[in-house]
Order: sequence, then C-alpha cells, then structure tokens
Amino acid sequence: METIRAVDWSADGRTVRIIDQRQLPETLVERDLLTLDAVCDAIRTLAVRGAPAIGVAGAMGLVVSMQSFVDDAPAAFVDRLRSSAARIRATRPTAVNLPWAIDRMLAVADRVGFETPSAVVDAMRAEATRIRDEDRASCDRIGANGLSLVPDGARVLTHCNAGALATAGIGTALAPIYLAAAAGRRVEVYVDETRPLLQGSRLTSWELAKAGVPVTVIADNMAGSLMRAGRIDLCIVGADRIARNGDVANKVGTYGVAVLARHHRIPFYVAAPWSTFDVSMPNGESIEIEQRDPDEVRRGFGALTAAPNAAVHNPAFDITPADLITAIISERGVHRAPFDFALGAEPASAAVFA
Amino acid sequence: METIRAVDWSADGRTVRIIDQRQLPETLVERDLLTLDAVCDAIRTLAVRGAPAIGVAGAMGLVVSMQSFVDDAPAAFVDRLRSSAARIRATRPTAVNLPWAIDRMLAVADRVGFETPSAVVDAMRAEATRIRDEDRASCDRIGANGLSLVPDGARVLTHCNAGALATAGIGTALAPIYLAAAAGRRVEVYVDETRPLLQGSRLTSWELAKAGVPVTVIADNMAGSLMRAGRIDLCIVGADRIARNGDVANKVGTYGVAVLARHHRIPFYVAAPWSTFDVSMPNGESIEIEQRDPDEVRRGFGALTAAPNAAVHNPAFDITPADLITAIISERGVHRAPFDFALGAEPASAAVFA
Repeated sequence: METIRAVDWSADGRTVRIIDQRQLPETLVERDLLTLDAVCDAIRTLAVRGAPAIGVAGAMGLVVSMQSFVDDAPAAFVDRLRSSAARIRATRPTAVNLPWAIDRMLAVADRVGFETPSAVVDAMRAEATRIRDEDRASCDRIGANGLSLVPDGARVLTHCNAGALATAGIGTALAPIYLAAAAGRRVEVYVDETRPLLQGSRLTSWELAKAGVPVTVIADNMAGSLMRAGRIDLCIVGADRIARNGDVANKVGTYGVAVLARHHRIPFYVAAPWSTFDVSMPNGESIEIEQRDPDEVRRGFGALTAAPNAAVHNPAFDITPADLITAIISERGVHRAPFDFALGAEPASAAVFA
Repeated sequence: METIRAVDWSADGRTVRIIDQRQLPETLVERDLLTLDAVCDAIRTLAVRGAPAIGVAGAMGLVVSMQSFVDDAPAAFVDRLRSSAARIRATRPTAVNLPWAIDRMLAVADRVGFETPSAVVDAMRAEATRIRDEDRASCDRIGANGLSLVPDGARVLTHCNAGALATAGIGTALAPIYLAAAAGRRVEVYVDETRPLLQGSRLTSWELAKAGVPVTVIADNMAGSLMRAGRIDLCIVGADRIARNGDVANKVGTYGVAVLARHHRIPFYVAAPWSTFDVSMPNGESIEIEQRDPDEVRRGFGALTAAPNAAVHNPAFDITPADLITAIISERGVHRAPFDFALGAEPASAAVFA
C-alpha cells in the first residue's frame, strides 16, 4: 500500500504538511501550514480532519505557531503559548483527541519550565513527533487486533472516513481492512457517501481505490436496503470520542447505521485509538455535538438545494449508545460489552496485544 | 394555500404544462411538452416526477403525442398509438401509476374503436382529464382521511417529495399536513434531503415553505439522532407501488426511515392513491427497482465527489416490508395491518370516506 500522509512535518520540520482534503478526490494537494491562523483554519474547514489526525495536527500546529517566538521574554512566551493552545483547542469541540493532544503539549511545556522558550519548543516538537508516532503504531495495532473480525470474502460497510486520511497512520476503521487485504483476503467495502461533506465518497473511496481494495459508494440512505438484501456482513466505523460506558460520538449518521445493523443482526464495530476514549464522560449525553453551517446542507455543492426560507439542522456528529455496539477495537484489544473504560484500566474482556 | 400545478393541460389544451422540477428551488420554470420525445424526456429526467404526477403526465403526454396524427389511416394510427404508449410506459419502471394510466388510455381507445382517429384522441383527452381530476380528488381525500393522524403540535418526518409537486393535487404524504395546517393545527415538518437528487430539500422544503408550513431540512443520515432525541412524533411518506400484502416501494431511504421509526416506536405511515396499489404483485420482492446513472451519486453537483475508479450503487427505490408500516392512507380510508389489498375489495379495517 502506497503511504498516505494526511498530516506530518514538512521536510525541514518547520511547518505542518497536510493533504488538503477539501480538494479530494479531484486533486491531491499538499499544503504547508506556517502560522497559527493557518493551522486553526485548516482544522476548522476540514482541510485536515479525523479525530486522530486533528490531534496530531493540533500538536504540531502548536509547535509551528510558537517556534518564531523563542526570543520572547518567558512571561510573554507563556501567555502566547496558552492563548495559542486555547485557539487550536476551540476549533472543533467533539473529537477528544484535539484537547488530549494539546494537554500533552502543555504538560511537556510545564515540565520543561519556561526559563528558556527554545527548550520548550524543542520539547514540544519531540512530544508532537511522539504523538504522531504513537498514532501510527496505534493504527497498526488496531488493524492487527481487528483482523480476525474481517474474514475472507467479507463485505464491510463503513461510514465517513476513518482511514489513513483520518490519522497519521493507516487509519482506524480501515486498518483491519487494509491488513486483511494485505493478507490476501478478499474484502469488499461499501461506503456511505456521508452528507453533507461527503467524506465517505470523496475520501474513503479515494484511499481504498488507491490501495486496490474494491469499494462501492452509496448514498447514506441506501445502506438499509443493502443490509436487507444480505449484502453486508459487518460494519466498522471510527469514533471522535468514546465515553466511559462505551457510548460513541462519531460522524452524524453512525447512529442510523448502528440501528440498521442491529435490525439486521449484523455486527457493528467501532475502531479508535486510546486517545479517543474520554473516561471523564460517564456516557454520550455529556459529549458536545458540533453544529455546523447550514449552508453545508443548503448549498453544499454551489447551487441552492433547499428553499431559502426553510430551516436547516446540521449536527456534525451523533451518539451511538453502547448497547448497539458489538465491540470496540483499540490498540489495547477488542473490547466487548459491558464496557467500562476506567482510566488506564484494561477492560476484563480486552485481548491484550502482544 | 397557493395552488401548485405540477402537471396540467396548458391553457389551449394542446400541450402538457409541467413545472420543471429540475430547476427548483432556484427557479420556478413551467415547461410545455409538445412531442412524444419531450414527454418521455421530461419523465425520464425527473422534470416531472412523483408516482401520481407521472401517471397524469403519461396520460396527457399520450394525447399530445397522438393529436397531430388524427388524419392518419386507422391502422397506422393504432400502430403509432401502441408504440407511443410503450415508449412512455418504459420511461420509468417502478411507479405503477404510469402503466396504470397508460392502460386506462388504451382501454378507452379500444372502446371507441379506431375507425375515426380524431374520436379516439377526443376520448383519450377526456380520460386524461378524468385521471387528473381523480388524482386531485384522491389527494383531498387522503388529506381528510389522514387528518386525525396529525395532531396539534405534531412534528412530522417525511422523505423525498410526496406533495403537490408529486401529484396533480395537494399531494399524498403532505396532504394531511396541509389540511392540519389549514385547520389551525401547529405542524412542523422535518424533511430528509433525499440523496442523490435531493427531492426532499429541493422540492418538499420549497412547497411547504411556500404554504407557510414550518420546515427543517436535514441530511438523510440525521433522521436517527432526531428520533433518538424525541423530536419526531410520526413519519409519513408516499409510495411508488404498493403490493397486495402491503409491502411498499418508495424512494430509496424509505426503508431506513421505517426501521428507525420502529426502533424508536414512532408511527410510520404511507399515503398513496389507489392507483399506486398493484394487486398483481403478491409482495414487494416482485417489484422492479429502477437503477439510475452512477453519476447522480458520483458527480451529482458538478464536481467529482467519488474516486473515478470506485464503483457506485444507485437504486432509485427500496422496499419497505408491510410489517414496519403502521397504516397506509388512501382515498378509501386508513388501512391497518394485516394488509390484503385484493382487487377492488375494501380492507376490513378501512375507514370508509363518506
């Protein structure tokens, strides 16, 4: 599989290089983010998206936004660091990976102390690199842990994009699929186009086709009839935040797929790295759901596609309750109900990855 | 409510005047169909759509396509009539109203006999007008029969467009909503945008907003989370063909809405005139599902929205099994399970419309 780098350092390590996902599948554009504004804008407009990827982009972006200020007085540097971190953190509210990564960066800065701003930037640069590397390793382990769930001949439904484009590595939901294909299993993927921003049709079909995995795009509303026709064997999706009880916030429409899967007795899996788990949330009700611009629905493709005087409801995510989830695949294992993701604890049902 | 005429005779009665629904909601364009080619093209490209409306358009279109040939020899006229009827009938396979209307036209022609082509055209013109008038009356009766299902304060989810734009009258699924609003009840409608051709956002939001009924557009994949949040009281959709056992073919995505409604214990109603019932079909498995151009999904809005080498699955309809349907509303009453729509028979559970 040809490597896709959704987010990484540029060659000189001074900027964040992303694939501008707004341009796919028409054009593959790489973009270097040089400033705090550019980083925030790229995350907010979904040039870089996917919970793990925006964690990495946020961490690297904080380094980029601070590296020109190493000659500032320590007090001014600290102020700027805290306000820059707050701005990056506020770009998108639902995925926990972003505040998780920013918190790691600030903790490192605190440990180094602020006498020497350049030492803080160096330490944060190393930490951002670690976050990237850990994410890559998590993707590989999620793939290995989920591999047994994707048998030869499997027809998999996924929603949105939880692939290489959503992470620093080979993806979360798509990781077991990539490893199954690499192991010579025949795997076929159906992907919901995922309105309004079409991450399924624009991104997932692009990266699977690039990797030679057979992929078929459907409109979101076609998943039900495919399941009823017996054409789907399992569902795998990603996650933006997983509560302690196993409730999952993910791209809007995930919940509907989970209900359909339950109705048709099809296994429904969620794949996510540990950085997506938020044990401070007892359940999904506490998770903030981002509301996005109505024009994504009303004129998502240029032309007006709804009456100008009609209202539009445009939540970016929904909550899938734990009781609809067959298992959650993380780098720590395959977690099955009842879920209780206490901080640091290995669930009793987890297969430990060797 | 300002009258919408999706399909009607033009003022001089020589052409079929339709609202070109491909242009909505940006522009209200009326188009006169003068030829067989124009009629077939308008139906095939969904300039006129909706099961009842294409029945009326097909009947009127057959008249328009034959009226210039009244001076032909009777044998040539009959040949042309049969081939024109076959062409119109073949434009779209799923809605039964189209073959039903064409069959009525041919039966009238048979009854008149073919000695005098002009007499055949006159009789067919009168029959097409009857089909239109019956459809209008059916819409009104569906509205009256369904009125008690839409209480004050009701929040209704609908899918696609089964309103005035889908019929010669005030619609099927939207008819009870229009009458409830006219009766002073507060009714709020959520409409799935209905990919790929967005009939929900483009058409349903347009006609409801025009009538002053509060309407909110959602992407298809948002219906589940609205139901889970307790924001939907009932669902009403239209139908393209209803089998004898109550299985319903309707716009793709209807089945998913029905499964979600069942999961959330929300009533799921189908509204359709008797012309949509096909008692020759024992169940939904026998109904042909139209497959449409993959580019409706792949580049439905101009730009490429899926990888060029990804496959696309694009069925226009799906089947909702009768056991997910709370009731079917026709001009004959509110039919409840178990359904058995034998030819001409009134189901035992039907409330007869006085």
